[in-house]
Amino acid sequence: MTSIRSATVIGLGLIGGSLVRDLRSLQVEVRAWDADPRTLEEASRGGDIIRLGSDLDGAGASDLVVLAVPVQSAGDVLRQIAGTLGVHTVITDVGSTKCSIVRTARELEVGARFVGSHPLAGDHRSGWTAGRAGLFEGARVFLTPTDETPGRVLDRITSLWVSLGARPEAIDAQTHDRRMAWISHLPQAVSTALGLALHEAGIAHSQLGPGGRDVTRLAASSAQVWADILCDNAQNVVAALRATTSRLGSLTAAVEQGDHAEITRMLEDSSLWATVEERTADSGANS
Amino acid sequence: MTSIRSATVIGLGLIGGSLVRDLRSLQVEVRAWDADPRTLEEASRGGDIIRLGSDLDGAGASDLVVLAVPVQSAGDVLRQIAGTLGVHTVITDVGSTKCSIVRTARELEVGARFVGSHPLAGDHRSGWTAGRAGLFEGARVFLTPTDETPGRVLDRITSLWVSLGARPEAIDAQTHDRRMAWISHLPQAVSTALGLALHEAGIAHSQLGPGGRDVTRLAASSAQVWADILCDNAQNVVAALRATTSRLGSLTAAVEQGDHAEITRMLEDSSLWATVEERTADSGANS
Repeated sequence: MTSIRSATVIGLGLIGGSLVRDLRSLQVEVRAWDADPRTLEEASRGGDIIRLGSDLDGAGASDLVVLAVPVQSAGDVLRQIAGTLGVHTVITDVGSTKCSIVRTARELEVGARFVGSHPLAGDHRSGWTAGRAGLFEGARVFLTPTDETPGRVLDRITSLWVSLGARPEAIDAQTHDRRMAWISHLPQAVSTALGLALHEAGIAHSQLGPGGRDVTRLAASSAQVWADILCDNAQNVVAALRATTSRLGSLTAAVEQGDHAEITRMLEDSSLWATVEERTADSGANS
Repeated sequence: MTSIRSATVIGLGLIGGSLVRDLRSLQVEVRAWDADPRTLEEASRGGDIIRLGSDLDGAGASDLVVLAVPVQSAGDVLRQIAGTLGVHTVITDVGSTKCSIVRTARELEVGARFVGSHPLAGDHRSGWTAGRAGLFEGARVFLTPTDETPGRVLDRITSLWVSLGARPEAIDAQTHDRRMAWISHLPQAVSTALGLALHEAGIAHSQLGPGGRDVTRLAASSAQVWADILCDNAQNVVAALRATTSRLGSLTAAVEQGDHAEITRMLEDSSLWATVEERTADSGANS
C-alpha cells in the first residue's frame, strides 16, 4: 500500500479485527481501540499495535482512520475524533448503511476526507475471534464518495481495499442503502422473524433439516450490529418487509384455498428466479 | 436385507432414483416406472431393472412397493395397484406428508400392509439426475404405522431403511404432519415468498451475498413436489405461515417506529434460539 503507512482501527469485531490482522501483515503501523478492554488486550497479543484509550487520543495521528463500530455508534466516534485529525488523514467506515454516516461526515465538516466503505464480507458470526486475515480477499466493497470527495482521497481508500485483495466499486449512498435493504437487510429480517416463529412454536433449531437450517442461518447474527442497521435504514427496510409480507399473504391464501395452480405458479416463479442466473439484467452482479 | 428380494419403485425422482441405485447394489430385483419415459430409459442404462408400463402391470409382484411420486399422485397410484398385490407384498411411500396417504391406504383396504415413510433426505435439486447411491446414509426416516399395522409389516419397512443406512423412527401421522409444517414446509414457503418479493423488486439472485443465498436456497425447490405438499398439509401450513407473518409484522412495526430496544430484543431471542442447541427440550432431535 503505497500511501498508507499508519492506520487507526476503531472497533475490533469481525470486520475491524480482520482489518487489523491484514494491516499488520502489510507492515502498516496500527493504532486500535475497542469498547471491550479484553478484546483490545487479546488483539495486542497477536502482534504490535498501539492501544488507544477511551478518549481516542492519538486516533487522528494515522494516515487512515477506519470506523469499525456498529452503525449507530460510528457517528459518535467520528464526532469525537473529527477535531483531532492530521492534515492528510483520510477516514472510512465499514458499516452496512451509508446515508447517515455520509451525512454526519458532512455536518462535521470532514466530508472531503471521508469516503464510506461497505465490504460484503459479513458472516453470522461476530467479534474479534470470528475475524481472520484474508477476510476481504475477493470481496466486493461498495465505496460511497460524494460531490465533495477529492480524487486523491477516493484513490487512497480505493487502494486500501485493493491492497487487501478486495474489489472496490463506487456507488451513490442512497442507491446503496436502497439496494442493501433488499439484498441483505431483508433476508436478515426474514430469517429472524422465522426463527422467532419457530421458537414460539416450541420447535428447537436442532429439529430442522438442512433446508430449514439454511433459511434460519442468519437468525444467529449479532443483534447489536443488526438492530443498528435496521434502524438506520428503516424506510427502505420497511418497504422491503411489506412487499415480502404481501407475497407471504398471497401464498397463505392460496394454500388455504387449496389453489394448487396458483401455488404451483408462485413456486415456479420463485424457482426460476433462484436458478436462472443468466437472466439477470444487472450484468455487474455476482457479489 | 433379509426379507426383501424384490422391490417396485414407482417414480424415479431424487428419492425414488436414489432408492433404485441403493437397492441395486443390495442385489434386490428392481421393477420401476416413471411418468417420463426418458427417465425410465436413463434409469435402465445404469443397470438391470424391469421396466413397467403405464398400466403398472406387475408392480404388485415384488416383496415391496415404494410409492415415490409427488404426494398428490401417490393415492392414485396406490388405487391403481391395490388389487394386484401379492400375498406378502408390503407397501411404503416417501412423501413429506403422511395423513392423506395413510387414510387412502385404509380406504383401499391395504392399511395392514402399508407403512408410510418420510426420509429427511430432501434437497432443493430434484429428478433422477439429482439422485445418488447412499442418499439415505445417516438420514432420519419417519415411519407412520397405525393401530392396524402388524408388527412383521413394520419390521420389514424398518429393515428396508436400516439396510440403506438410515435411522427409522415411528411417529403418529398427525403429529408428523403438524411438526413437518413447522420444521420443513414453513421454511420452504418463507424462502419461496422471499424469492418472489426479490424477483418482483427487480433484484437478481446473483446480486445476493452468501447470507441472502442461504435464506433463498429453498426457493429453487421443485414446484411440482412442493405444491402437492403445501396443499396436502394445508391446515398445518397455514397456521405456521400465519404465526410467521405475525412475527414479521411485529418486526416491521418496530423498525418503522425506530424502536431500537424492541428490535434488539427480537434479534436476541431469535439468535439465542438459533445458537443454543443444548436448550432444546426435544432430546430426540438432531435431524
